[in-house]
Amino acid sequence: MAAALMVGATPAWAQAPIEVREIGSMHVGGRVATIEGLPEQEIVFSPGAPPLRINPNGQFQVEAMYAQYVRLQNPRARVPLHFWHGGGLTGVTWETTPDGRPGWQMFFLRQGHDTYVSDAMERGRSGFARSPQVFAGEPVFRTMGEGWGLFRIGDPAGWNADPAQRRAYPDSRFPAAHWNDFMRQGVPRWATTDRQVQAAYDAYVQQACPCVIVVHSQGGNFAMTAALNAPDKVRALVLVEPSGAPPQAADAARLRDIPHLFVWGDHFAENAFWGRVRGNVERWQGQLRAAGVSVDVLDLPAEGIRGNSHMLMMDDNSDEIAGRIQRWMESKGLMR
Amino acid sequence: MAAALMVGATPAWAQAPIEVREIGSMHVGGRVATIEGLPEQEIVFSPGAPPLRINPNGQFQVEAMYAQYVRLQNPRARVPLHFWHGGGLTGVTWETTPDGRPGWQMFFLRQGHDTYVSDAMERGRSGFARSPQVFAGEPVFRTMGEGWGLFRIGDPAGWNADPAQRRAYPDSRFPAAHWNDFMRQGVPRWATTDRQVQAAYDAYVQQACPCVIVVHSQGGNFAMTAALNAPDKVRALVLVEPSGAPPQAADAARLRDIPHLFVWGDHFAENAFWGRVRGNVERWQGQLRAAGVSVDVLDLPAEGIRGNSHMLMMDDNSDEIAGRIQRWMESKGLMR
Repeated sequence: MAAALMVGATPAWAQAPIEVREIGSMHVGGRVATIEGLPEQEIVFSPGAPPLRINPNGQFQVEAMYAQYVRLQNPRARVPLHFWHGGGLTGVTWETTPDGRPGWQMFFLRQGHDTYVSDAMERGRSGFARSPQVFAGEPVFRTMGEGWGLFRIGDPAGWNADPAQRRAYPDSRFPAAHWNDFMRQGVPRWATTDRQVQAAYDAYVQQACPCVIVVHSQGGNFAMTAALNAPDKVRALVLVEPSGAPPQAADAARLRDIPHLFVWGDHFAENAFWGRVRGNVERWQGQLRAAGVSVDVLDLPAEGIRGNSHMLMMDDNSDEIAGRIQRWMESKGLMR
Repeated sequence: MAAALMVGATPAWAQAPIEVREIGSMHVGGRVATIEGLPEQEIVFSPGAPPLRINPNGQFQVEAMYAQYVRLQNPRARVPLHFWHGGGLTGVTWETTPDGRPGWQMFFLRQGHDTYVSDAMERGRSGFARSPQVFAGEPVFRTMGEGWGLFRIGDPAGWNADPAQRRAYPDSRFPAAHWNDFMRQGVPRWATTDRQVQAAYDAYVQQACPCVIVVHSQGGNFAMTAALNAPDKVRALVLVEPSGAPPQAADAARLRDIPHLFVWGDHFAENAFWGRVRGNVERWQGQLRAAGVSVDVLDLPAEGIRGNSHMLMMDDNSDEIAGRIQRWMESKGLMR
């Protein structure tokens, strides 16, 4: 896959069409919830339509999750490749980058993987349920400035509402001129629904795996827990800047047959929050190794690749990083 | 396209792979909103991660919409085919049916159309904004029982929380045994955001058209208004059970060059609400005809095809109906 590392030129494989058997989608998991005791409402739903009298009480289908698949005519990978997004985002993370380049979904389709791109329970096309009757608390909305620091585009002090005044890290590889475009991908989240998110992911793994999971940020802990819950269904885990890890009491030996690749960008030293997150994840890496699990780490700055953000699948070297992940998957026997 | 009408057998074209140039997505439209004066919060976002102190005030990217495209290597259609969904739903409407058959997106891809499947502003992957600071009012959640009557699966009195006790119309073509699966596709909506929904659709048309638009239910009025706002960008409108129409004061002559096909299912006589909706739309059809617009109507029961629901793209004869739409598009010169 050396061609994948040709940054700057568009290699021939990146322009060849792909042969697709089917594009489709599913909702998985969830339950029926009953809500009672709310007052009736009268609502005009479409301009020009007569008003409807609505009783908001009744049964609701809640807590499922959405996944979309692209199945190739002749996949080269042994099992489908799942893409699980991070917090406050959806499966769009893996699609076209904010500056309009093909994203990782397209990259790995061209490499011969069937792809499954999902929205976590409560996000995007999974839909959300009524608060506080079904989801406790209220949704949380991420500001454009919070994301700037949290995703390590630049120092939080470098944020400015005026795009012309924003200061990214001088070596940042994120297409920072498209920060506003990226923030359009954001969706609200609840901070109270991890149990339901995990339950939906567990149902998804049962329905749509065996698989390899590429997972980002908040999704990392859900994917590691899903693997602990169904180690026979997960063939490998690619953990892109995971923001959490299973508890120390978790039995890492259950993941003995699942090779792990951890991928880290740059600018951890400047960000105390991310330093703590990474320390926590590295503690779990130690547990995995002690249990005999195959653990590899792609620490980009340690390899001389500087300036990658938390959203490294959108950075200007996103194809180069994807190419390294692809080579790792080849080395693990995941391709035919 | 006679093959498309072979119900029961799977014709060869429905199994041939498609050659895809690129799958990708975009967010279009919207604005930056500023929220001030809310108190700070401390939140643990990922299990195992340290708590973050969050200031919920700041700038937010709001009111954009999401669209996903599949571009064929050799499209046969002259312009891309857009799919716009109805109320309380997302672009998933056009994907795999609730009982697992390929949906209309896949059907029309196989017929040679580039497809664009979008989520209206506020729904699905478009994300939603804070209420009441950005969106007035509160989200509306559709009960499983309300959908049953409103989507004309059966008489409202035939609804029952127990799937075994539900009574669909005896001739219903909706896969009613999968009603719960269908309801997992539902998402909340606001009844106060039509202006923003329309603005995002108008921006989308400017960015991603010329196009043909296939639109369902609540989307109908948005698509007709988008065509009135940019008649040079819309090559044809396929209106599947539209639930509204432009005001009588609208200038139908602006749509002179845009052929219209209206598609209606069954059981209008039993449903007073839908009778009123259809009367309103037929008044607009009359205005279109009077202005010299090409208007065709595919009234399925009038052609002897009984039992179609409001969600006819999911009914058991969905491919047959799509085939008729395809033939109409051929007849209008929309294919190469």
